Amino acid sequence: MPSDINFKLDEAAKLLSRTPSVIRTMLTSLPERWTSNNYGPKTFSPFDVVGHLIHGDQTDWVVRARQILETQNSEPFQPFDRYAMYETSRGKTIAQLLDEFEQVRGESLKNLTAMNITEAQFELSGKHPAFGNVTLRQLLATWVVHDMNHIHQIAKCMAHQYRDAVGPWKEYLSILPK
Amino acid sequence: MPSDINFKLDEAAKLLSRTPSVIRTMLTSLPERWTSNNYGPKTFSPFDVVGHLIHGDQTDWVVRARQILETQNSEPFQPFDRYAMYETSRGKTIAQLLDEFEQVRGESLKNLTAMNITEAQFELSGKHPAFGNVTLRQLLATWVVHDMNHIHQIAKCMAHQYRDAVGPWKEYLSILPK
Repeated sequence: MPSDINFKLDEAAKLLSRTPSVIRTMLTSLPERWTSNNYGPKTFSPFDVVGHLIHGDQTDWVVRARQILETQNSEPFQPFDRYAMYETSRGKTIAQLLDEFEQVRGESLKNLTAMNITEAQFELSGKHPAFGNVTLRQLLATWVVHDMNHIHQIAKCMAHQYRDAVGPWKEYLSILPK
Repeated sequence: MPSDINFKLDEAAKLLSRTPSVIRTMLTSLPERWTSNNYGPKTFSPFDVVGHLIHGDQTDWVVRARQILETQNSEPFQPFDRYAMYETSRGKTIAQLLDEFEQVRGESLKNLTAMNITEAQFELSGKHPAFGNVTLRQLLATWVVHDMNHIHQIAKCMAHQYRDAVGPWKEYLSILPK
């Protein structure tokens, strides 16, 4: 079995800094149907995902980290609207969203660095609207896994566009639904 | 529901050309435990995945495409050894494998271009050892989805390393097993 990796801020920040480039490389300069199609009812397209990641950086991760550090767990976090990008991305192109995500993520990481979080502060907690007490460490680890979740989802979505084109190989490709 | 995207060689080649860069951005210059840990018994680590992709480019995709074009479906394909990288990657570093994958993929795409495949030739077929008749189009679409499958798997594997660090958020992160 693999060992669990303890959270380290420098590693987390390194991983977070790479996501805009990973996603840009996957999605830039493709015919629109590769970025605008989703993989079934109520799923996100790659276009939706990038808008969702931007909204998370603008309203969730750093905002909650700051709230934990500054308010001593007095108020629950604002709930995060997972579908806000259906409004906020309206009328934009995927190229605009990729640029915006890169810029917004850069800001987020600058803000994170400026917080100068100490090892002891990682154990400070905030109130999640559904889970109750969560620590700053858990919030930041979740930010990284949330990025991975959506890189994973973009790959799934793109693979799905060739779901019939692959013919019988579908059986070997776990990324496609059986 | 999303529409299925018809296979187009120029789009497939574009997607295939990006995979080394996507994977390099995800994996380069990280502490080894991010690239060498897997996500459970009999699963691939990111290190395993890159070796597996190299082996596929060296022995499978282009070789089979050439066989379809040249031998008129007379012999079944050689079975692909999905575990060959446990031998072929031995003693190498992830940095070496990332370089090797970039180089090997570049060669594959040069060879693919040199084949000058016509629209009619996409319907030519070969004999898959398990599935029987498969077309050249299906083979090439599968190559793309196979890349996406493994980008998806690398993201899953990396997310898994923070499976405990995220605390209660695990419930919201579909990339982590429940």
